[in-house]
Amino acid sequence: MNDRKILLTEDEMPRQWYNILADIKMNPPLGPDGKPIRAEDLAPVFPMNLIEQEVSTDRWIDIPEPVLDVYRIWRPSPLVRALSLEKALDTPARIYFKNESVSPPGSHKPNTAVPQAYYNKVFGIERLTTETGAGQWGSALSFACCQFGLECKVYMVRVSFDQKPYRKAMMETWGGKCVASPSMETRAGREALEKDPNTPGSLGIAISEAIEAAVSDASGKTRYSLGSVLNHVMLHQTIIGLEAKKQLNKIGEYPDVIIGCAGGGSNFAGLAFPFVLDKINGKHIEIYPVEPAACPTLTRAPFVYDHGDTSRYTPLLAMHSLGHAFVPPPFHAGGLRYHGMAPTVSQLAVEGIITPRSVQQIQAYDAGIAFARTEGIIPAPETTHALACVLEEAQKAKLEGKEKVILVNWSGHGLLDFGAYEKYFSGDLKNYEMTDDEICRSKKVFENFPKPAHLKSR
Amino acid sequence: MNDRKILLTEDEMPRQWYNILADIKMNPPLGPDGKPIRAEDLAPVFPMNLIEQEVSTDRWIDIPEPVLDVYRIWRPSPLVRALSLEKALDTPARIYFKNESVSPPGSHKPNTAVPQAYYNKVFGIERLTTETGAGQWGSALSFACCQFGLECKVYMVRVSFDQKPYRKAMMETWGGKCVASPSMETRAGREALEKDPNTPGSLGIAISEAIEAAVSDASGKTRYSLGSVLNHVMLHQTIIGLEAKKQLNKIGEYPDVIIGCAGGGSNFAGLAFPFVLDKINGKHIEIYPVEPAACPTLTRAPFVYDHGDTSRYTPLLAMHSLGHAFVPPPFHAGGLRYHGMAPTVSQLAVEGIITPRSVQQIQAYDAGIAFARTEGIIPAPETTHALACVLEEAQKAKLEGKEKVILVNWSGHGLLDFGAYEKYFSGDLKNYEMTDDEICRSKKVFENFPKPAHLKSR
Repeated sequence: MNDRKILLTEDEMPRQWYNILADIKMNPPLGPDGKPIRAEDLAPVFPMNLIEQEVSTDRWIDIPEPVLDVYRIWRPSPLVRALSLEKALDTPARIYFKNESVSPPGSHKPNTAVPQAYYNKVFGIERLTTETGAGQWGSALSFACCQFGLECKVYMVRVSFDQKPYRKAMMETWGGKCVASPSMETRAGREALEKDPNTPGSLGIAISEAIEAAVSDASGKTRYSLGSVLNHVMLHQTIIGLEAKKQLNKIGEYPDVIIGCAGGGSNFAGLAFPFVLDKINGKHIEIYPVEPAACPTLTRAPFVYDHGDTSRYTPLLAMHSLGHAFVPPPFHAGGLRYHGMAPTVSQLAVEGIITPRSVQQIQAYDAGIAFARTEGIIPAPETTHALACVLEEAQKAKLEGKEKVILVNWSGHGLLDFGAYEKYFSGDLKNYEMTDDEICRSKKVFENFPKPAHLKSR
Repeated sequence: MNDRKILLTEDEMPRQWYNILADIKMNPPLGPDGKPIRAEDLAPVFPMNLIEQEVSTDRWIDIPEPVLDVYRIWRPSPLVRALSLEKALDTPARIYFKNESVSPPGSHKPNTAVPQAYYNKVFGIERLTTETGAGQWGSALSFACCQFGLECKVYMVRVSFDQKPYRKAMMETWGGKCVASPSMETRAGREALEKDPNTPGSLGIAISEAIEAAVSDASGKTRYSLGSVLNHVMLHQTIIGLEAKKQLNKIGEYPDVIIGCAGGGSNFAGLAFPFVLDKINGKHIEIYPVEPAACPTLTRAPFVYDHGDTSRYTPLLAMHSLGHAFVPPPFHAGGLRYHGMAPTVSQLAVEGIITPRSVQQIQAYDAGIAFARTEGIIPAPETTHALACVLEEAQKAKLEGKEKVILVNWSGHGLLDFGAYEKYFSGDLKNYEMTDDEICRSKKVFENFPKPAHLKSR
């Protein structure tokens, strides 16, 4: 009998993160003047130690001991052979999933929330603000702040706040404060409410409120925290792939195919980047970021300079973008509803090192339920998108008669997202696809921005 | 740096369950005629292989290989040193918790759901029925039936069905069918609805519906499944304590104090029974089942013969009971709202081998939140009762200046129970305590039943 789980001891946990900026060329972020921004421009928003990490090109960065100690609450996370799923699919492929749902908040998000809280703490910061859509990120930051004795304030998009009251309770259990956005607490919030008192809110407004609350605190002890997109977030997440590599190595395996869902890009990057390094050095691996057809950033949007938020507070980032004003249709994978994509992930797509794919919502839930009925655990709506791609690849391996090794990031569980499963079972779940016209219209917002260079890293 | 988690490999998982019936004397269950029931009396309700296990006095019973293989999805479960909690409490005690929340349904319940589904399957049964209150047991049985290709039908108490729609979605994700009880599908349900169309339902009615649905299936291919109380349920749960013993042994520890919450008794028994064996053989250990003050079965109710269900379908069991007609006040630990207690656990209490305790609801949530804010993970309402006792014992160790080893069963997570946490934070959570008068009244139902002997096992 083969083991299902490949475990590492706490001693075997990696002691450094992998920084992909050492190995790829990047277009710099631009300020309002169209010139590359300087570190000090970001100082009111982020602590200087994280800004330094954001721009570092060191290949390996030490994980601080207090961060490792909190990681030990749930890390190293299990790598699991999906034996029952393989059997049900009758595939010659060997499928391994990295189970990031074992963290207290239930997803990969604390991999970066914990170091972000730590670096803010040692920089003397006492309070963090952030936004959250589906609630995974707000939960993770509340958990991390609780571990380091920081206050945490989360602006949660109103429609999710009302639909998912349990997320607020989770944040409060860890001492976080969560308000519906738009709120009356910020100028950005009040303006949005004046315009429309019944607005469901948006991630864009929530980001504006969180940044405003951070930079307007006269004590200087508050900063803002972002859960995806930025370089240091991708960096922190690489612990996923570094662990997976050690785990596969233990049993003499190496992946032929790597799959992760992609919203802002952080769970995908976390698993894939340590293997991208191997691919750049000559290994043959197929690497698939998977996005929803309803928000097709990598698969259908151009590589441009655009803002990271709707209110255009952030610098211009070189990335695939549907336009900072884009509002996706109401599909259920809240973590995949972002208009842009991490600049590092975008750059890899531009260079053809990774191969973006998209799936429809119903296909994703089909895969999620096939997984739950074999392997037992119930995936988050985001994770089901990666699983749909796993099923396609397992089927392909069967048709080709090849013993491929498929590695997927099981980024989170769905235990606080059963609303979507209920809709699936009652037949109320819909597919959404953007028309070419919609994409053309959404692109207008960045027409007059500078254009990024198409760099070639090797 | 000490490791937080003590892990076992899948190879190190115990291969046998421990059967406490080999080591203690028991009053037999009685039929309607007041005489000990025979195996064949139970045959319409349970498959014969489980009935044989129910009455076996073999000390060790082999775990079938297909059961071990499903256990491998989440077992061996981690034993975790609560280093951060210890530090926050400034206690010399070393606190270890056995994390049973890592199973797909999120509690210890699948430890018995999986073998019950397996034994029914090999006996040729195609469909199981059961009841569920809070939803943990219904979820666990749905998961287990899915693994062995059985149909699963769950009668869920109406008030919980309405309050916790996510539990139904969870069961459906694994292919289970869940209806609100009372339903129109059974005679018992229809009678209850005729009496009161707006009844919130009760565990008693739900049990009656599930048993009726099993025994009235003319094909003979349906049986009923119970998630606590019975001997074979306690047996299956002992994998918890057997693993914990191995894990503590690995690091040279042995518990001074063992704690588990107790509703029907199964998670408490699962952790404690393998250590009870040592205690019977001379080891000094304090063993505490912890119950809610609002349903004080072990701490305030007598040891009597009583029915396991409100409708008096079950045999008379020798146990601590508040009376089969007892309806507990509406506190939030649904898994601790049972009027009786497992006969094996009751017998140990009668003999003074274990020492029952009770805690108030608010004290329990205080402890749960103290735990979540240090160790990260968020406990189920039931589990918080055990944690309240852990805090008391850690404080006692501090006052005594003793380096005690405390072992607690962390029976489940609270991710589907945030309603109670919300009430706690809004100040709407109440304590309940039974008056002596209420206990006197509730005892009337078993006044005329036979009385069990006070047996002494050693």
